Amino acid sequence: MTARLSRRGLLGGGVAAAGLAGAGVAGAYAAGGLSGVTGGPDGPTGSGAVAERYPFRGAHQSGIVTPAQDRLHFAAFDVTTDDRDALVALLTTWTAAAERMTAGGPAGPVGPVEGAADLPPDDTGEAIGLPAGGLTLTFGFGPSLFRDADGRDRFGLAERRPASLRDLPPFPGDELVAARSGGDLCVQACAQDPQVAVHAIRNLARAGFGTVAVRWSQLGFGRTSSTTAGQDTPRNLFGFKDGTANVLAEETRAVDDHVWVGADDDPAAGWLAGGSYLVARRIAMNIETWDRQTLAEQEAVVGRSKGTGAPLSGGDEHTPIDFAMPGSDDQPIVARDAHVRVVHPDHHGGARMLRRGYNFVDGTTDLGALDAGLFFLAFVRDPLTDFVPVQRAMSRSDAMMEYLQVTGSALFAVPPGVAEGEQHVGQALFA
Amino acid sequence: MTARLSRRGLLGGGVAAAGLAGAGVAGAYAAGGLSGVTGGPDGPTGSGAVAERYPFRGAHQSGIVTPAQDRLHFAAFDVTTDDRDALVALLTTWTAAAERMTAGGPAGPVGPVEGAADLPPDDTGEAIGLPAGGLTLTFGFGPSLFRDADGRDRFGLAERRPASLRDLPPFPGDELVAARSGGDLCVQACAQDPQVAVHAIRNLARAGFGTVAVRWSQLGFGRTSSTTAGQDTPRNLFGFKDGTANVLAEETRAVDDHVWVGADDDPAAGWLAGGSYLVARRIAMNIETWDRQTLAEQEAVVGRSKGTGAPLSGGDEHTPIDFAMPGSDDQPIVARDAHVRVVHPDHHGGARMLRRGYNFVDGTTDLGALDAGLFFLAFVRDPLTDFVPVQRAMSRSDAMMEYLQVTGSALFAVPPGVAEGEQHVGQALFA
Repeated sequence: MTARLSRRGLLGGGVAAAGLAGAGVAGAYAAGGLSGVTGGPDGPTGSGAVAERYPFRGAHQSGIVTPAQDRLHFAAFDVTTDDRDALVALLTTWTAAAERMTAGGPAGPVGPVEGAADLPPDDTGEAIGLPAGGLTLTFGFGPSLFRDADGRDRFGLAERRPASLRDLPPFPGDELVAARSGGDLCVQACAQDPQVAVHAIRNLARAGFGTVAVRWSQLGFGRTSSTTAGQDTPRNLFGFKDGTANVLAEETRAVDDHVWVGADDDPAAGWLAGGSYLVARRIAMNIETWDRQTLAEQEAVVGRSKGTGAPLSGGDEHTPIDFAMPGSDDQPIVARDAHVRVVHPDHHGGARMLRRGYNFVDGTTDLGALDAGLFFLAFVRDPLTDFVPVQRAMSRSDAMMEYLQVTGSALFAVPPGVAEGEQHVGQALFA
Repeated sequence: MTARLSRRGLLGGGVAAAGLAGAGVAGAYAAGGLSGVTGGPDGPTGSGAVAERYPFRGAHQSGIVTPAQDRLHFAAFDVTTDDRDALVALLTTWTAAAERMTAGGPAGPVGPVEGAADLPPDDTGEAIGLPAGGLTLTFGFGPSLFRDADGRDRFGLAERRPASLRDLPPFPGDELVAARSGGDLCVQACAQDPQVAVHAIRNLARAGFGTVAVRWSQLGFGRTSSTTAGQDTPRNLFGFKDGTANVLAEETRAVDDHVWVGADDDPAAGWLAGGSYLVARRIAMNIETWDRQTLAEQEAVVGRSKGTGAPLSGGDEHTPIDFAMPGSDDQPIVARDAHVRVVHPDHHGGARMLRRGYNFVDGTTDLGALDAGLFFLAFVRDPLTDFVPVQRAMSRSDAMMEYLQVTGSALFAVPPGVAEGEQHVGQALFA
């Protein structure tokens, strides 16, 4: 270990790497610290621990089955040009920047302070000295990239639009804000250190100046899902464990069935094979109202114990739910409108999602309450089968809806990973 | 170590405690994990490391000279009643809750799930299983608590208002938003884990329902100041090291001179002795404009090297600045309008502050840019001598102002710590 090793490398990645993953490996970038497993006060334990680095290239994009990192910065962009070449050039720039930053390097090839003094630096500098921090950058294409709100096919992509990539239908209870919804492109940045995630989004936005503008962005301070078997189940702002029944990376069959788009799923969109769809929903929680409910009422709404996360039908967090078990009043103990019943895969033909959401607080409402909630992110093989029916049922009959408003919504097609030798993410779409 | 030990305790506090602070001590609360020093990917190194717990009672409030934690949730409140007894009752409730939460316990005496099922829990639950996380809660009183905007002395406190506790004067370049400014009360929550800080503010707001409403709140994702000699100097969103010349806890003379209110400072406000003043300023940064400047221009604006933080007059980060050293053009090498010159204590009669600010990103501006900046927090013995002249000089002649807008501003008197046996923070004010 050298004096250049960052504090994160020394106390976090370094210690964990020594303990869990053997000796550290010298990084490709001086700022990168040790390669290895990241742990520490914000880091998870167990076999699902977040690694210090994830490769950017591969069959699938990182940031999906990757162990859910603790912090999020998500941005949706409008493309402000009609020039297809400019769009491709941006995706090429973004791909190179993402490959560098996820390896712990700067956004540009030169770096924040190494270049000529009479040029703007090609990296903004706030991540100097910080290691990769488990950063993943996951790119997606919105329906409007293929045909915009005026019906225009700006980039010659309309014929290759996946059939399932269309604006989500309106759901009862949606209170969508246009400025928090949609987008031609998206980037999900997840990392253990929020400064690393913010730095990545900021530098991608900067690289896109003149080609894209940020349509909306969302910080998430705490993950609400586990995506691997080794991660603790975190809690949402209702105080309940969330994501207990999530699709986990280790469930390779379920991942293939419910996350990755298959080669034959959509004849018009072979380019999406190995990719996924990303549903983003900004769910504001009426936490003040929720907090005035009794513990029994809260547990009845969710269908689980608040403390252990066990279903009200008994057992522990991961015990299958007995929906038929009677309660004390001739009703089932897991109520008919309990969240876990309404959204359960058994009631939707086995539909499942890989959720990857985050808690957020965005200041204050006009009513003197915290503007807080869950930024819901889910990756699915097909939103029309794995998400829409579940959301429709939830909107219609889930007791939890009384405490929620969905204020933002977006859907993106997430192309497969960038293969070795490819110039940019989504290259097959533009081929 | 037991299975109940949290992931933070195991990989962060646990390892660091073993390495730096000896064997862990069983916590007062089961959820508290190990007592000890917190480190890890989000944690600082060195002698200034953030501890797992800070005592709530003492001569001064915690969260001032305490090593700056990595995450912030700050809230300002309006008191919505004219009932002095209700205000005192709230402060009593807040004090008890703060003492519990900073020790790793729940907000209320019962806890999130241990109480009767037919009552609302007295803690909201999202921090179940999380340790104290270095949480500090620091309370302040705004000018309007003593006399409101209509001139009313609602709580019989007007005669005890400190002479320096008045709305800050307008500064050139301020673009203040009323909904982000002022407040009768404030709470600064700092912790290593943002979920711990958010949980604390949320539960204090909840406890105040009917007595206070949240006027504004601000999350900060990354600290921009060190407050002890052992902490690394972090970077702000301009990419520069920030807080290099901060008042540090180890500078006991400077802390006495510039942070703590003296017993004889203000005859009307003896209750504030041992306390401080807290200046809060929400400083939006034009990061897009900044990022288009050359490295030389950025460094000229700041007066320091972007990489090392050394002054342009040479040396390393902590080398004193030579303001007379000539540059290449008959101007001093540290320009006349360089930030470090304009705000330097030597040019303000030795005025210094203990800064404790945080980087923020609050979504997106109407112009498609990130709404990002620095939430400036500074503790001073007297804002009229330690802050106002510096801010005035900065507003008038600091080159950095071209890249800043101050969109929120507030001043609070921060009472001394709660002594053993006292019922609530600020008790001497109400005595």
